Parts: sequence; C-alpha cells; structure tokens
Amino acid sequence: MNRVRVGICGLGTVGSGVFNLLSTNGTEITRKTGRQIDVSLVGCRRDHPACDLSTTTVTRDIFDVVRSDDVDVVCELIGGTDVALDLVREAIAHGKHVVTANKALIAHHGESLFQLASEAGVSLKFEASIAGGIPIVKAVREGLAGNRINWLAGIINGTTNFILTEMENAGNRDFADVLKEAQDLGYAEADPTFDIEGIDAAHKLTILSSIAFGVPLNLAALYSEGFSAITVEDIRFASELGYRIKHLGITTRSEQGVELRVHPTLIEKSRMLAQVNGVMNAVMVGSDAAGETMYYGAGAGAGPTASSVVADIIDVARSDGQSGGVPEFGFIPQALETLPMVPMEETASCHYLRMRLLDKPGVLARISTILSQHDISIESMIQKDGKTGTAPVAIITDEIRESAINEAIAELEALAEVDGKISRIRVESF
Amino acid sequence: MNRVRVGICGLGTVGSGVFNLLSTNGTEITRKTGRQIDVSLVGCRRDHPACDLSTTTVTRDIFDVVRSDDVDVVCELIGGTDVALDLVREAIAHGKHVVTANKALIAHHGESLFQLASEAGVSLKFEASIAGGIPIVKAVREGLAGNRINWLAGIINGTTNFILTEMENAGNRDFADVLKEAQDLGYAEADPTFDIEGIDAAHKLTILSSIAFGVPLNLAALYSEGFSAITVEDIRFASELGYRIKHLGITTRSEQGVELRVHPTLIEKSRMLAQVNGVMNAVMVGSDAAGETMYYGAGAGAGPTASSVVADIIDVARSDGQSGGVPEFGFIPQALETLPMVPMEETASCHYLRMRLLDKPGVLARISTILSQHDISIESMIQKDGKTGTAPVAIITDEIRESAINEAIAELEALAEVDGKISRIRVESF
Repeated sequence: MNRVRVGICGLGTVGSGVFNLLSTNGTEITRKTGRQIDVSLVGCRRDHPACDLSTTTVTRDIFDVVRSDDVDVVCELIGGTDVALDLVREAIAHGKHVVTANKALIAHHGESLFQLASEAGVSLKFEASIAGGIPIVKAVREGLAGNRINWLAGIINGTTNFILTEMENAGNRDFADVLKEAQDLGYAEADPTFDIEGIDAAHKLTILSSIAFGVPLNLAALYSEGFSAITVEDIRFASELGYRIKHLGITTRSEQGVELRVHPTLIEKSRMLAQVNGVMNAVMVGSDAAGETMYYGAGAGAGPTASSVVADIIDVARSDGQSGGVPEFGFIPQALETLPMVPMEETASCHYLRMRLLDKPGVLARISTILSQHDISIESMIQKDGKTGTAPVAIITDEIRESAINEAIAELEALAEVDGKISRIRVESF
Repeated sequence: MNRVRVGICGLGTVGSGVFNLLSTNGTEITRKTGRQIDVSLVGCRRDHPACDLSTTTVTRDIFDVVRSDDVDVVCELIGGTDVALDLVREAIAHGKHVVTANKALIAHHGESLFQLASEAGVSLKFEASIAGGIPIVKAVREGLAGNRINWLAGIINGTTNFILTEMENAGNRDFADVLKEAQDLGYAEADPTFDIEGIDAAHKLTILSSIAFGVPLNLAALYSEGFSAITVEDIRFASELGYRIKHLGITTRSEQGVELRVHPTLIEKSRMLAQVNGVMNAVMVGSDAAGETMYYGAGAGAGPTASSVVADIIDVARSDGQSGGVPEFGFIPQALETLPMVPMEETASCHYLRMRLLDKPGVLARISTILSQHDISIESMIQKDGKTGTAPVAIITDEIRESAINEAIAELEALAEVDGKISRIRVESF
C-alpha cells in the first residue's frame, strides 16, 4: 500500500481531532513515512462543526466503514463496549487494521480481539486508550522491552487530578464545589462516576499491568477506591506532613504475585508524580535496568488523543501493513503468564489516618497503644487545637498490611474518645 | 532468524551492562519477542570484572566481531569517533545490524552511516546515545510521529545537573568544590571538559533536533556555553526570584529557522524541568497535537544505557531483521529539509543579569536608562545590602534579542558604577 486509506468511525471530539490532524500535518507525516495517509471514509451519525467534510465521503452507517474496499485502517472512536465490539470484530474480519482509543473495550475484550487480529494478520493498536498524548504503551512495550518491570504507578485520569489540584490550590473549596467547576469547564462529565470512582483509571491500569508484566487482562481482580471522601482538611494535613494527595493507579509484580489497585495516595512533595497538576497525566515505571522512568503529558483532549491515534496509524503505515512484530500485549500470546493476584487485604502500605479525638487526658496514649498492639508504628503525627472539645489528629504510620490497619481502624472507631469515622489514605513512595 | 546472535564490541561499563542484561532477562526477553537473543561473541581488549565470560567466545580483536558469520547484531560500545567509525562501517558492509550508544559518532557521522545502512538493508540504531534509559528517540520518532514538533528542551547531561543540584542544595559550595565530589563519586570524568562545556549535550541535542524537525545533522551550527561561571550567588538570587538554574539543550523550529543551543538557563521553580535533580535527565517536547510531553529517567550508568541498547536489539529482532520501516532520522532521507539556522545573535530570551553596583545615589536609575535605551524592560529586580560599598543587584528582563542584550551589557560594564563583570543567564519558560 503506497497510499494509506483511513476510515474514521465516530466524529466526536477525538474523531474530529484525528480527521483534522491527518489533514493539517499531512505533508509532515508523508515526510516521515514516505506515504500519503488520508481519510477515505468517515462514518458518523452527525457531522462535527470542527471538521470540514466537503471533500470527504461520509456515511451515516459506521459499519460501511469497516466493510469498505476503500479503507486500509479503521479508527474506532465511538467508545463503549457494545457497538464498538461488533465494529472492531467486523473490521478485523474484513482484514482491516484497527486503531482505537477505547480503554473499556480493550480492558474487557482485549484478549479475544488480539487473538482475532493475530489470526487475520492485522494490527489492533490502542496507544490512545491510555494517558492521551503520552506514548506510554510504546514506552512500556518497546522502549523498556529489555527490562523486567517491577511496578508502575500513574496519574491516569485528568478529571480527578484537576479536582485534587484545585482543592489544594484553593485551600478552602470542597470536592463538590470543584467538581462543579470541572463540569462547567468540560473536564468532567455530567455523570462523573466513571472518573471519580476510578473506573476509567481501572480500565487503563488493567491494560498497563498486562503489557508491563505479560499477564492476562484481569479487570475483575482490580481494587478501586474513589476519592470523593477526600476533604480540604485531608489536603491541608497531608501538606503539613510533607505530602500531596493524588489519585493513583498502581500495579506491582513481586514473588507474592500482582497487585492492581486504584486509590487516593499520599506522595512526598519532592517526588516527580507530586508535581503533576491539573488535567496532566504521568506514569512512573520502575524496572530492573532503566530504574525509574516517567512519562508526562496531557491525558485527554482532541489534540493529545489524536496524536496517539495517528502515531498508531503511522506505525501501521511504516510496517507496510504487516503486523509489525510487536505483540499487542508486548509479550507473545503463548507467553502470557497467569500470576496470583495479591488480595487487597494482603498488600502493605504506609497509612495516613485522620481522626477527631475528644479533648481528654490520655487519649493519644490509648490510640498509640491500639496501633502498637497491631504492630503499627507511628512515623509522624500532627495534633491541632480543636474548637469544640475535639482535636483533629493526623498520623502517618510505617508500612503495614491492610488487614492489620483495617482491624486497628475498626478498634479505634469503636473508642468513645474517637469522634466519628476515621479518614484513611494509603501513603506510597513511588 | 529465530535465534538472534549479538556481538558486543567493547566491554566497559555499558558493554558489561548489555552482556549482563541479556543474560539476566533472557527468559523475559524471549517472552516478549518469541526469540532467543544471546551474546555469541564479545570483542574486548580486557575482560570486565562484572561479566562472567566463562561460556562466551571472546576475541581481543573487535573487528573479528563485525566479520563473524556467527553475529546478526553488532553492539558498538567502544565510544569515540575513530575506531568506532571504521568498526560500524565494516559491520554494515558485512550486513550486520548495528546498535550503538555513541552520540559523538552519530552527531558527526550519522548521515553517511545511515546512508550506508539503508543501502545495505540493515538497521543502525542509537537510542542509548541520548539520555541513557529514557526511550526519547522512540518517543520523538514514533510516539509523536503524528505531530509537528515545535521545540524540544532537555536536561541531557547528568554530570552538570548533579553539580547544579548539589550547589543549590548545599547553598554554600562553589562549582570547583562540587565538581571534585562528582569526580570522587564517578559522576564526572577526571577531565570533565566534555560535560562541563556542553560538548556532550551538544552531540545529543544535534541528534534530537534532526529527528524532531527532519533537518540534517548540524553540529557546527550549535551554540554552546558551559556553566563553570555559575556561582552560589547566582543560584541564591535565582531562587529568590522564583527560578532554578539548569543546563539545558534547546532546539526550536519557527519561521525564522532552527535554533540549536546549549547553555545555563533559569526555569521557573514550578515547571517540570525544574524538578529534575541530581544525575537524572529529562526531555520536554512541545508539539502541535500532543502539546507538552516530558520523558524522565536516569541519563547514564550501566543499567539505564543497557536498557536502551537492548531495546534496540529487540526492535531488530521483532522486525525479523528487516530495517523495520522507521527511518533512522524519523523522516525518510529524501525528505530531510535544510532550514536556515538562526544565529545566536538573533535569538530572543528573557535574561537574568547580576552585577555589583557602587553604593551611590542614582546608580539604579542609570542602569534602567541604559536598559530602556535598548528597549529592555525590567520584569523583576532584587537589590541586596552590600558590605564593602558595593551592592549586588539581580535583574530579570523581558524577552529581548541577544544582540540588544549584548550591547546593553557592554555599556553597563563600561560604567564606573558597575564593579567588575556582569553575570548573565538566559531565562526560558519551557
């Protein structure tokens, strides 16, 4: 194929971005590939105001795109896992290479789709599904291919990071208030559950874990915790103790097996991940030879996501329509290894605990005693003067298993001197 | 080629790292490539204590390696541009793929070597030549291939970054003192000229500029300034003004042409590049679709450099010995475009100026007048109490052409009220 004919399915923000990028940078892309890459067919229910479709063939049935003889590479940019699944399957069946930005599709159906693509001798690429414009899939799968990767930790949802950054910067705005602003700015959906509860991050982390360790996709085993319970008080205490709060996706591989978890996390202010603010994303990778490397950039938006979609199209073009030799998982399918998943109860972290204590003598001693009965040491502590007979206290513990800290928290909350629930956030040193 | 046979030329720190990494991660690498990749021949003048060569064939003549029928991929890890050039030429002539960590070789002879490789149908890869374990060549050439890249700015020499970080952290140690520590720690060479004067960074930046913009290598046009003149006082003033001093490689492309420069730079403390400390490296890339992305990691050392060498070997293995379709420059050779180089005199930056002024009335007014006669506005200024009849003053100007600031500095230094030379450092917002 000298000319590469791209079919775009879905002309929302990302689809329009891809359409426009291929047009704007057409000359530059030809300089890089020796080929003309252009859009031969667009399938969309309605046109998009950002796109000039006057010289492009448009169909209202996206399935026309995957069946067209005039398309070499199909871009699946409709999202979701129902129609998108049928669409990608049919594209592969018609011998088309597929490029997608759909993290849910890959996290849920990646394995079967990769299998179909492999049998059909086509590529199925998904760089844009994780961390927008950051070429993190390529970095893990190719750039670090000589390494044994031990862990990976990332800020992989821009909405949550925007809200946490704003809460920290303003110092007095609570979660609901900043969420509303994020919605007004278009950084958060009208129904923000997917972002806030960590489901979006869970999809991305599951894929990253598979390509980092060569394990099958295992979304069901992932532990996920949203961050709507984080208060301004937590952010202030964390800051005084030397930390920032970030919503992290973390996956590790050790002798015990694989950990896969998404939750709010305290990170020391001096660490690189603590510098990642607003809607920006970053992924830190810990590996045996390269050590710590980090990849930073915009995690969403038309331009950044289109950048990754087009990079995948260029990869297909450069490999001359061959599947290119890089397995979709980074590991050859027969080498995927099912490792034990470490149950959340058996993971270990340092912990931040915030509680309100009745202003009575000996209360701190009782807290310390209960913690030490569970083998939990206190690394640092801040106590504030309370105004209403209670004093807020924040504690950082040393590393302790979840099961032990859970038991300790339950015992502490049962104390008459502890007023209300205890806020708990894991502390990590990534 | 099912088995991939690697020949290593040079068994210093990097060569040993590659030898050991291929052995340690052999199983993991086979899971990723479906192939066995192992070292079939090592050419080195003397063995390295870190390597167990008991089961490996060793020759004392590195040219045996490039001529051997038992080698598919040659790793050139001897450094320098004399023997290394002959070695790589002969490897290509014998139909071997070549992987090198040699930035000087690529910066000086890349074009002719790429041409030879292309004619011979082999790959010549050099990820390890820039920023150690960071897969920056792959990110620019492939991950961002859909973008028009507008600028690139990096901390690409760990030695200089270590010295600047230590000077800042200690607060009272001068350049020579910290350089000695860096030498004792093995972070700086006995003759540190290559690092300190920016020659090493110049080699790397020249290569990055070519793959970012698709321009021919042009080391001769690069402006380079070392940082041995930076004093503790500069670091303190910069900090008070809200900046850190980093030694940056910067290349930009605009309508005026290409800028290519290495010099000390003030960067706002809140910027990501300002967080890169010690021997760590990072490259920030500004492009039209992805926006700002940054790549961070260890810039040197056995493990990180070996990580990139082995990634290149794996690329060769995965593409089944084909050249893989990614042009060495990122752009196809016939599309390389010679753009005008912007002379340093015509570039524009904000500037930091530090001077000692005699403690006399009206002296600041005279300074301001001279600056304003050259159309230079003062953005911020700090004046300290002097102890000996002179007062140190630091000024940040707005953006101004080099030629204008040079003239202004010459005029200011000629004033009787200005005691000694003026320290000048460019200020950038990357």
